[in-house]
Amino acid sequence: MKAYKEMTREELQREHEKLEQKFQEIKAVGLKLDMSRGKPSKEQLNLTNGMLDVLNSDSDMNSESGIDCRNYGIMDGIPEARRLFAEMSEVPEENILVYGNSSLNVMFDTIARAVYMGICGHTPWGKLDKVKFLCPVPGYDRHFGITEFFGIEMIPVPLLATGPDMDLVEQLVSEDTSVKGIWCVPKYSNPTGISYSDETVRRFAQLKPAAPDFRIFWDNAYTIHHLYDNDQDEILPIFSECQKAGNEDLVYQFISTSKVSFPGSGIAVMAASEANLADARKAMSYQTIGHDKLNQVRHVRFFKDMDGVREHMKKHAAILRPKFETVLSVLETELGGLEIGSWVKPKGGYFISFDALDGCAKKIVAKTKDAGVVMTGAGATFPYGKDPKDSNIRIAPSFPTLEELEQAARIFVLSVKLVSLEKLLEQ
Amino acid sequence: MKAYKEMTREELQREHEKLEQKFQEIKAVGLKLDMSRGKPSKEQLNLTNGMLDVLNSDSDMNSESGIDCRNYGIMDGIPEARRLFAEMSEVPEENILVYGNSSLNVMFDTIARAVYMGICGHTPWGKLDKVKFLCPVPGYDRHFGITEFFGIEMIPVPLLATGPDMDLVEQLVSEDTSVKGIWCVPKYSNPTGISYSDETVRRFAQLKPAAPDFRIFWDNAYTIHHLYDNDQDEILPIFSECQKAGNEDLVYQFISTSKVSFPGSGIAVMAASEANLADARKAMSYQTIGHDKLNQVRHVRFFKDMDGVREHMKKHAAILRPKFETVLSVLETELGGLEIGSWVKPKGGYFISFDALDGCAKKIVAKTKDAGVVMTGAGATFPYGKDPKDSNIRIAPSFPTLEELEQAARIFVLSVKLVSLEKLLEQ
Repeated sequence: MKAYKEMTREELQREHEKLEQKFQEIKAVGLKLDMSRGKPSKEQLNLTNGMLDVLNSDSDMNSESGIDCRNYGIMDGIPEARRLFAEMSEVPEENILVYGNSSLNVMFDTIARAVYMGICGHTPWGKLDKVKFLCPVPGYDRHFGITEFFGIEMIPVPLLATGPDMDLVEQLVSEDTSVKGIWCVPKYSNPTGISYSDETVRRFAQLKPAAPDFRIFWDNAYTIHHLYDNDQDEILPIFSECQKAGNEDLVYQFISTSKVSFPGSGIAVMAASEANLADARKAMSYQTIGHDKLNQVRHVRFFKDMDGVREHMKKHAAILRPKFETVLSVLETELGGLEIGSWVKPKGGYFISFDALDGCAKKIVAKTKDAGVVMTGAGATFPYGKDPKDSNIRIAPSFPTLEELEQAARIFVLSVKLVSLEKLLEQ
Repeated sequence: MKAYKEMTREELQREHEKLEQKFQEIKAVGLKLDMSRGKPSKEQLNLTNGMLDVLNSDSDMNSESGIDCRNYGIMDGIPEARRLFAEMSEVPEENILVYGNSSLNVMFDTIARAVYMGICGHTPWGKLDKVKFLCPVPGYDRHFGITEFFGIEMIPVPLLATGPDMDLVEQLVSEDTSVKGIWCVPKYSNPTGISYSDETVRRFAQLKPAAPDFRIFWDNAYTIHHLYDNDQDEILPIFSECQKAGNEDLVYQFISTSKVSFPGSGIAVMAASEANLADARKAMSYQTIGHDKLNQVRHVRFFKDMDGVREHMKKHAAILRPKFETVLSVLETELGGLEIGSWVKPKGGYFISFDALDGCAKKIVAKTKDAGVVMTGAGATFPYGKDPKDSNIRIAPSFPTLEELEQAARIFVLSVKLVSLEKLLEQ
């Protein structure tokens, strides 16, 4: 395939005319497809239906510690749930707090607590003139949403193939006491799908922040969400690396089963040092009398242990893999060699990140919408929704059926081509 | 029975000697009983076990609106849940937001939001020098805990038989812009069991607060928790009274099924005006992707409607009534006529409030503990844990068995007598 930039003006115009006609034909069909959010499909949800059978009126309602899970109490979570999530988070059991159904909620509450109470006895962020967060970009829109909501200034940091640009992170963190945190999705990053290198994890663990209440917000969102059995990313466990560096209070880890069991009815967890958990418990003792322990029981009895979880995740992968491959194959077939976009083939997670020609992302997303395909808003992967190059687009292939996905991907590449041609013609 | 204060010093001493011997005998038994928290008993929890059978792997997972309840989404709650809780809260369906498993959490978050975001566009409370709350006393320790945690100054207001002293409430609310809220448990109040009169509710609805962001925190904790079929308190619905007074933004209502279904795995709800809900949704859209909708489905399919809930509550009452009556009968038999304590016979709720002679509450609670009976800490029913008269003790009869309760009540009255005798002997 000839790269667009090698084409003559006439060739570009001919190509645009041909594709525009094709676009209008597809638009006339009136499709309604959605590739906007990392939402599991019905088929994936069905994998967990058996969890609804493990607790019924005849079941033993007690946790292994003998506590009646129907009643009030047990702030930290039942022991068997703490044990399971400890293995998942690669920390000792005593470093786990089990929360409700949403890790986003735990992250929001953790920031909120820093704002009104402060971290480990330090000044509440709400009392400071300026609080800043480092935001590896492209990144997760809902992370950036939380920091924006609390008026925290967000500083973008480039996300490289090895993780955030650590030279820049180390510099910013060490020289400015108003830099209080960084958002990280260390494995199968949202949206680029990359995983942090061992060096990156070690440099994180060895950070020497100017602010004593600086924390790494380590979102293990896709830590067990591999697409392939034999080609998986593994990353160093951050908590033990922090301990080795004498820095165990540096990191909050978050994880949930939203994309393991049921997105609306999963279990969320925070993993952190004893000092950080004591801080969290201080607020929690006023905030609730305990989380939903019956749902903890459901999860533990359904999965049994981490081997059970891993087997379950293979079933998710079997559903997701062909979806990713469908989109990637359309991208490769239709855009390969045109030099109007680039993407990374992820080995896990929920997204494919696409970089269009500069200044084209917004127009491409508008174009696909015009033909009935909703994508994540262009810019959403950057703080304040502002992608300085207007180039990154997040593709979420999980929810549509394979057939819908094929259609949606074809509309997407057509839109990429048209918008790119228009850009080149304008020059 | 002769009132203690009518006794001669010699009679008091003889009585003390006799009772002290009895106390030592009971203490030697080494009992371990708990009347400290409003915790439902195992027998009550069993009433709801059927809820665990309404959802299994073969169930329809959709809400009546066709939404798959296993997946992300639906911030406000599924329509059938909103409808059920609307009837329970006596507001239109659109004035309901369904949250997670704990109304305490919803109240905490509502205060937290006022602190970091402010209410309906007004200055965040965290930016103000002084924020005050009115606290009807005696009241619920966990309410006072939240306001104390956020550094809000608590002003005690006497709780009368008709509700809070409204002359004082009206005066404090109208003259001081730093008074931002009041805690209310309007029906079967915690701990006194009284319900607000129609006049009290109307005067609340017609408040003219100096602060535009003043809110009534109306905790409907025991609104359907009657003890008797034919002798029930009913109170005026606050929301429609507020609407009549042109004051619909004045009140936040909270309710949960913690003492209806399962305390750890119930459903919590906020009911409020459209403006107040819009405010709550603003933070919620960053805080979560939705609450546990499968648990909403469980509740609605199990109870069906408010008639179902009411029938269910009769079963709770059948278990609770004899427990309350056991304690009341021991109080009456053992303390009647002695003039060393007073109590109200509640028609619902979870508590019996006991007022000892001034300066005796702490000693009585310490004494019962000495014999193996844990009571709610004396003072807990007042802001900062400080009962100025050291006289109020909350009795929670729900958790122990009838037999345990009889024992515990006997130890309690014995402790009341001994401490009162000691006080009279000291004079």
